[in-house]
Amino acid sequence: MQGSGTTATIDLVADMGESYGQWRMGDDDAFLEIITSANIACGYHAGDPRTMDRIVSLCAQRGIGIGAHPSFPDRVGFGRRMMELSETEVRTDIIYQLGALQAFAAAHGTKVTHLCPHGKLGNSVITRPDYAKAMVDAIYSVDPSIVLYTQPGQTADLARERGLKIAMVGNIDRSYEDDGTLTPRGLPGAVLSDPEEIAARTIRLVKDGILVSRNGKELQRHVDTILLHSDGANGLGIAKVVRQRVAEAGITIHRFASI
Amino acid sequence: MQGSGTTATIDLVADMGESYGQWRMGDDDAFLEIITSANIACGYHAGDPRTMDRIVSLCAQRGIGIGAHPSFPDRVGFGRRMMELSETEVRTDIIYQLGALQAFAAAHGTKVTHLCPHGKLGNSVITRPDYAKAMVDAIYSVDPSIVLYTQPGQTADLARERGLKIAMVGNIDRSYEDDGTLTPRGLPGAVLSDPEEIAARTIRLVKDGILVSRNGKELQRHVDTILLHSDGANGLGIAKVVRQRVAEAGITIHRFASI
Amino acid sequence: MQGSGTTATIDLVADMGESYGQWRMGDDDAFLEIITSANIACGYHAGDPRTMDRIVSLCAQRGIGIGAHPSFPDRVGFGRRMMELSETEVRTDIIYQLGALQAFAAAHGTKVTHLCPHGKLGNSVITRPDYAKAMVDAIYSVDPSIVLYTQPGQTADLARERGLKIAMVGNIDRSYEDDGTLTPRGLPGAVLSDPEEIAARTIRLVKDGILVSRNGKELQRHVDTILLHSDGANGLGIAKVVRQRVAEAGITIHRFASI
Amino acid sequence: MQGSGTTATIDLVADMGESYGQWRMGDDDAFLEIITSANIACGYHAGDPRTMDRIVSLCAQRGIGIGAHPSFPDRVGFGRRMMELSETEVRTDIIYQLGALQAFAAAHGTKVTHLCPHGKLGNSVITRPDYAKAMVDAIYSVDPSIVLYTQPGQTADLARERGLKIAMVGNIDRSYEDDGTLTPRGLPGAVLSDPEEIAARTIRLVKDGILVSRNGKELQRHVDTILLHSDGANGLGIAKVVRQRVAEAGITIHRFASI
Repeated sequence: MQGSGTTATIDLVADMGESYGQWRMGDDDAFLEIITSANIACGYHAGDPRTMDRIVSLCAQRGIGIGAHPSFPDRVGFGRRMMELSETEVRTDIIYQLGALQAFAAAHGTKVTHLCPHGKLGNSVITRPDYAKAMVDAIYSVDPSIVLYTQPGQTADLARERGLKIAMVGNIDRSYEDDGTLTPRGLPGAVLSDPEEIAARTIRLVKDGILVSRNGKELQRHVDTILLHSDGANGLGIAKVVRQRVAEAGITIHRFASI
Repeated sequence: MQGSGTTATIDLVADMGESYGQWRMGDDDAFLEIITSANIACGYHAGDPRTMDRIVSLCAQRGIGIGAHPSFPDRVGFGRRMMELSETEVRTDIIYQLGALQAFAAAHGTKVTHLCPHGKLGNSVITRPDYAKAMVDAIYSVDPSIVLYTQPGQTADLARERGLKIAMVGNIDRSYEDDGTLTPRGLPGAVLSDPEEIAARTIRLVKDGILVSRNGKELQRHVDTILLHSDGANGLGIAKVVRQRVAEAGITIHRFASI
Repeated sequence: MQGSGTTATIDLVADMGESYGQWRMGDDDAFLEIITSANIACGYHAGDPRTMDRIVSLCAQRGIGIGAHPSFPDRVGFGRRMMELSETEVRTDIIYQLGALQAFAAAHGTKVTHLCPHGKLGNSVITRPDYAKAMVDAIYSVDPSIVLYTQPGQTADLARERGLKIAMVGNIDRSYEDDGTLTPRGLPGAVLSDPEEIAARTIRLVKDGILVSRNGKELQRHVDTILLHSDGANGLGIAKVVRQRVAEAGITIHRFASI
Repeated sequence: MQGSGTTATIDLVADMGESYGQWRMGDDDAFLEIITSANIACGYHAGDPRTMDRIVSLCAQRGIGIGAHPSFPDRVGFGRRMMELSETEVRTDIIYQLGALQAFAAAHGTKVTHLCPHGKLGNSVITRPDYAKAMVDAIYSVDPSIVLYTQPGQTADLARERGLKIAMVGNIDRSYEDDGTLTPRGLPGAVLSDPEEIAARTIRLVKDGILVSRNGKELQRHVDTILLHSDGANGLGIAKVVRQRVAEAGITIHRFASI
């Protein structure tokens, strides 16, 4: 399974800082032992200034990449509900959240090096050119060295045209169809849950750039970073196995976006 | 009335960007013709990303100094109600708000150059060492070049010790007692409203460093910036007269905090 | 122009209580002299407990009908932005807002007698059966004697089937096409602004049930209540003229929903 | 330990519905098997319309007393931070929250029968006459049949004078001094944690009206309801033991406030 001579590298990323006030979500401390980059909630769907300060501080200490994880302004809905906003609203909401996180990074002597949109905003930038443009404009105007974590498609194209650096995010716990689309969630096997299977897929994806579809077809995929799910029934268990197997396979685990 | 040889300089500042969503407050556009520095609401007591973006953009175009105007987290109370927060809460709430504004400044090619706390937070830092420390720590950790707009007292001392640059803010529309304290609001004449009287006091204060008490005593005061009230019955009318008379008196009107 | 023997009756309604904290919106006091029913904001898009208390108190004193004006949970967007919510979310958000207003009514010895959804929620219940059902279920479960202020269509039908009493709301400042649809806002004359013309249309609509289209076609319309706009350039001026002309025409002006 | 002829009765109450959006807090379902009355969060410090709807529905099905648990408007601080509000602000904030809960009760065919203030508001009404009056006025104006759950003191006196029914709440997991005050939290033994010890104290308190101080002094106390803590390390474990031992001691467990 070893790559021929070159060393494969991958960035392991997870959503962090999604607690709010007295409410806890996810096991951030455990994930900080696993990941090399963090998508940090900025107060719109989750996160509050104390949580942001704490997670940024821990990331700074460990050299974990600090990324903004902006959302629609919908805390009670956790940013998972579609909102019809103007391009200006999306752009300025992202600037606000990004800036808030940047200040915590500055306070801990470091920088925000990537951005990955959360929830329904994250889904929307894939399909809506106005939202994609709003996000790209927001990043570019604030700090064009910030790397956009995204999927292949119009958003990636737009970001690249604009001069932003992008990182391709790989999903490892979802089944794919032969045409490269995700197997719909309703279908059996759409979501993978066996840690060893997921780890094996991750290694194949990182080393060979291949993702095998539900029917066995080999799909070509380039990924720079792997999204580990900090929520879900066994997110932590899967993340631990993936990290361990990836390391054992000789893959270098390293943040994608450097300071 | 001319100073002897040296040119007096003053910075005219007002609270800006205190609209929220569909609600308007203050006549920001008129004040942007008068002031040289703006205390801009950062979303906690007032202000939203669109308002912040617009005001920052206009300030950037005109070279008006951009200052953060952070508040307690109390929008319905407009930041005017005392809240008992921990030092960590005050510090992180200020970092959050400051950062959000910094991103809009960056997006418009400029920087936040000062900070002036709003409302009850502004009152509290004068009397509470823990709140003062929280604010000074917040500013210092994010950007030690940011100038603190404040009053003489423990906060100013603490900021100076910490290495922050400070600007002394002068109140021109309040009467003072012989001991240098403000005439209590309940007493007649506590709040001045005649624009010409206020303008004359401003000129005396800026050129000679003298503020005359209610009983005629000359109080020594150094001021770097004059706070113009954008709310109130005749705030705009007073501000216009003050600006005009100050200019006529040969005083240079210029932002205190430079980029 | 007098009706033959019978006395026409109309309810004049406007949106009220859309201030928030220190921010003012609309001239509620002036409109309380004109209207017979009030759609009162319940804190989601506008309104706060002090504003609700004050408006409810004034309505109670004057016998003005107290109606809930619930919204999507979007204060910064004033409830004017589409949100994709589940039926349960819409239903429970409406119950929450309705209940809050009912308590103020109880505190002033009276009751909430109608409900009229605000902004984008109001638009959505016309076109989305799930949102319509959520609203009807909310009202029915809390107090089935509450009258729904609505337009003809699926929502009205659903409410009627469920046993709710409904009031048809007439728009008097918009032009209509021959097919009964509103003239699109982009077209010239889509929005009427001449108070006398609007008053004359109102009288015709109330007395004869006729609304004349842009091209002169007489459309049959039954209306129980007329919506006066408390915002807009000349909302108050139009409202005053409409009230006066309607009274002069011998039409009884009276709240539709009784206690 | 049996009372002589009469049957002792107690109401077991706990704070419920303190989840928010996607965030969970407490094990409401487990506590609903134990308690006879619920203090339900109303959206200011915790709780959202879905959570309120669900808890109210479950309480209605089981005959558990539904109580409002209003708070200061401070979600990020969970209502645990002091806020300086006017009497009008406290009164109207309580009316708003109470009404919202009442609507969910109505939607499930029942009523809110008690109110118990949360967190720092709960502490404040004990020491601040203006806050106490605001709360009593709020309850009285909305529904004077609602029972106030409180401690002996000025608030209880004020409520009684005003004609409100009150229930005395007993704390069973705190140590007391000889003068009847709580042992300060810093001191060893201030907080009890042994379920059997707490259960024994509860039985003594309910049957004999006696609470034994840290030094062994018997303090006379009348209690109508016992507060079980749904948070804390072993809140649920203690609650289960208390419920079981209280039942075994022949005490009737029944809601205090009836419909």
